[in-house]
Amino acid sequence: MTYVLHFAPDNASLIVRLALDHAGLPYEARLVDRSTRAQETAAYRALNPNGLIPALETPHGVLFETGAIVLWLADTHGGLGPAPEDAQRGNWLKWLFFVANTLHPALRMTFYPEKYTGTDRRDQARLRRHMQTQIVGQLHRLDDAAADWQASAPTVLDFYIAGCLRWCALYPEDTDRGWFDLSAYPALHATCARVETLPACATLERAEGLGNTPFTAPRAPTPPYGSAT
Amino acid sequence: MTYVLHFAPDNASLIVRLALDHAGLPYEARLVDRSTRAQETAAYRALNPNGLIPALETPHGVLFETGAIVLWLADTHGGLGPAPEDAQRGNWLKWLFFVANTLHPALRMTFYPEKYTGTDRRDQARLRRHMQTQIVGQLHRLDDAAADWQASAPTVLDFYIAGCLRWCALYPEDTDRGWFDLSAYPALHATCARVETLPACATLERAEGLGNTPFTAPRAPTPPYGSAT
Repeated sequence: MTYVLHFAPDNASLIVRLALDHAGLPYEARLVDRSTRAQETAAYRALNPNGLIPALETPHGVLFETGAIVLWLADTHGGLGPAPEDAQRGNWLKWLFFVANTLHPALRMTFYPEKYTGTDRRDQARLRRHMQTQIVGQLHRLDDAAADWQASAPTVLDFYIAGCLRWCALYPEDTDRGWFDLSAYPALHATCARVETLPACATLERAEGLGNTPFTAPRAPTPPYGSAT
Repeated sequence: MTYVLHFAPDNASLIVRLALDHAGLPYEARLVDRSTRAQETAAYRALNPNGLIPALETPHGVLFETGAIVLWLADTHGGLGPAPEDAQRGNWLKWLFFVANTLHPALRMTFYPEKYTGTDRRDQARLRRHMQTQIVGQLHRLDDAAADWQASAPTVLDFYIAGCLRWCALYPEDTDRGWFDLSAYPALHATCARVETLPACATLERAEGLGNTPFTAPRAPTPPYGSAT
């Protein structure tokens, strides 16, 4: 098998899974069991020393960092984003990095505030609220930008955005969701709807138990095996 | 002029400046005056809606996000990193994204903790200390990885790493620096030393007042014009 995707349901690995299936690339999906914190073991850290999911084994070695993996797949196989010589490449890259640098890390801070503030729960709640406010601003800027590429074929940037929006709607599970409303971002809503029409999305829904509207109207996952958190 | 680099001394724009000069690309450097918060004006936000430095005007539109700009320059002009078809590309991309996603955002949290915690200074100090501990771990992992590419020609990833290490040593100015010691990371120290041998580095030193050891033994900048903070 050319590729081995180390994944957990509803983790960032879903973006890589969408890319692999959308490009028609065969791969083996290998569960990283979060319920036993398998991502922190020496065996997993030999794949990704940062202990984060996903990792992708390739003929050129193990890749990690979601943005790097999907960009590498796009450049290696085509059909997943503008090629390096395309006039749209720069605009696409800057928003791909923005999602990877800014939106995704901000989301992680809302999911795992204890990794930034320490153990005080009031500190955690304050950081989460603050970052949710930041994310709203980030999403408005991304929505303005995404309006320009709605007519293009979907790319891994759309997959990455859709994943982040799903997580905005769902995580962390035990907190107020009032801060996020997908309908406030029409171009991003359209991105989610468009991703949901793809055969790769149907494959993802089945593989990870994400229901049939995983991006426009996400519900808590019911994965056939493994744990999302 | 093909390129216009919107910069501030000793800001992330220095990484782009190194890339442009190392590749021998002509550009106009246009100051973003941080002393008047020019990066937050409507005029600058028309270039980068996120209000961050740098931005690079190109024939294909304005680019922002340091990682995106230097990757785009590498792919457009060559000589700044492995090409998409190179067997080293994936390994290089994953660490480029790591620096852009993880190390650089963590540094920003130590420089501007108020953007994450709000106004309480004890909260700010706690976040800064916590993130400095995180950064130490990140640098050790990066040091392990960088040992593998020491023999290769310098790339924009080396420039990005050198910039981050400089800022670890210098910023924020009014806090304890005991947490950071470049000599603890031999491969990263070698990266800094190697970047300092490049003619592009001499150009940077003059343009932004960074002294003659801006990465291995950085001192506070004395820019000929503009403000670093």
